[in-house]
Amino acid sequence: MRRARYLATEGTEGVGKSTLCDLLAARLAERGVEVVRVREPGGTRLGEAVREVLLHGGEMSDWSEALLFAAQRAELMDRVVRPSLSDGKWVLSDRCYYSSLAYQGHARRLGVGRVWSVNGPALGGTLPDLVVWLDMDAEAALARQQGRDRIGAADPAWHREVWKGYRSLWTSDPGRMLRVDASAPAEGIAERLVAVLEDRGWLRDC
Amino acid sequence: MRRARYLATEGTEGVGKSTLCDLLAARLAERGVEVVRVREPGGTRLGEAVREVLLHGGEMSDWSEALLFAAQRAELMDRVVRPSLSDGKWVLSDRCYYSSLAYQGHARRLGVGRVWSVNGPALGGTLPDLVVWLDMDAEAALARQQGRDRIGAADPAWHREVWKGYRSLWTSDPGRMLRVDASAPAEGIAERLVAVLEDRGWLRDC
Repeated sequence: MRRARYLATEGTEGVGKSTLCDLLAARLAERGVEVVRVREPGGTRLGEAVREVLLHGGEMSDWSEALLFAAQRAELMDRVVRPSLSDGKWVLSDRCYYSSLAYQGHARRLGVGRVWSVNGPALGGTLPDLVVWLDMDAEAALARQQGRDRIGAADPAWHREVWKGYRSLWTSDPGRMLRVDASAPAEGIAERLVAVLEDRGWLRDC
Repeated sequence: MRRARYLATEGTEGVGKSTLCDLLAARLAERGVEVVRVREPGGTRLGEAVREVLLHGGEMSDWSEALLFAAQRAELMDRVVRPSLSDGKWVLSDRCYYSSLAYQGHARRLGVGRVWSVNGPALGGTLPDLVVWLDMDAEAALARQQGRDRIGAADPAWHREVWKGYRSLWTSDPGRMLRVDASAPAEGIAERLVAVLEDRGWLRDC
């Protein structure tokens, strides 16, 4: 049997993470892969409640924000990601803990190592097999997005800091992270990703 | 000026933490101490929203629970505890991070050290000056309590594990933690505590 994989899309607001997840899910399904689509924050009943507090609940301290993201992540890993992978299903996630490293660790200046330290227990050893970084000018991407939440509404210069966070993660760990040009058409990106998965042998039946 | 102090009451459900906070606040106010009363989870707008999810939001994974407690704590420290102490006000808290060590670290078996590791960033170096452990048989205390929330509704044997967690904390750190017999009348306990604060010189004007 094909080993189940956990893939995540990452990037600043408006780069097309959700669209890419949808396209990729459809292409994987065509090849007989059972796919579970999730999003962060959210993906569970608790996670959606926490999402509401995080994105529409007004100002909060930086560590509250980081810890709320970690809390919904623990639930998602426990209830959805690990059980799905155990069942042989692939998980496609719109965001993962890399968002916390880029947004809270880097852009909020809490420190990537310190933010990791509160996420390690939440992940319980289940890390994505591949993180697709949709790279694009942060301000241009932000301008494409409709309906901004609390975090999306932040100063464009701050979103540029988030982008720097992603770039730093990608520079330091190019193995897990795949950078793609997010200004290219989404269909083409999805196609390229399927080719990458094939190259890695992840789509071969054993 | 008298140095502001951060005091917390701790113990299993129904031992009288909130009552003791009220009595102590009144006695301190009589001595001219400005007191801010808080409770965990809660004490801020975000904290009360998280409290609702924690206590009435249904089942959740153990790490989600631990991280939600830490998240509301970060907010409380940032918005209430530290500013109050800076203003020279004493803070009396119904529960503090010791609850997380006893409930999630010990009774949920996440590990006291690991639970501490996600609370350290939330506290940002502000630790209580004194933690009053209201010690009482966990089942007897539970029976006194009206209206149980999700955590209070757990198996009595589990509350005994929480008690063991407190005992272990008290044994390992008797300096910060003061054990009192919670089956004694609350007025007497409050009186004894004021005597302890006097003995420590915390009520002296400088």
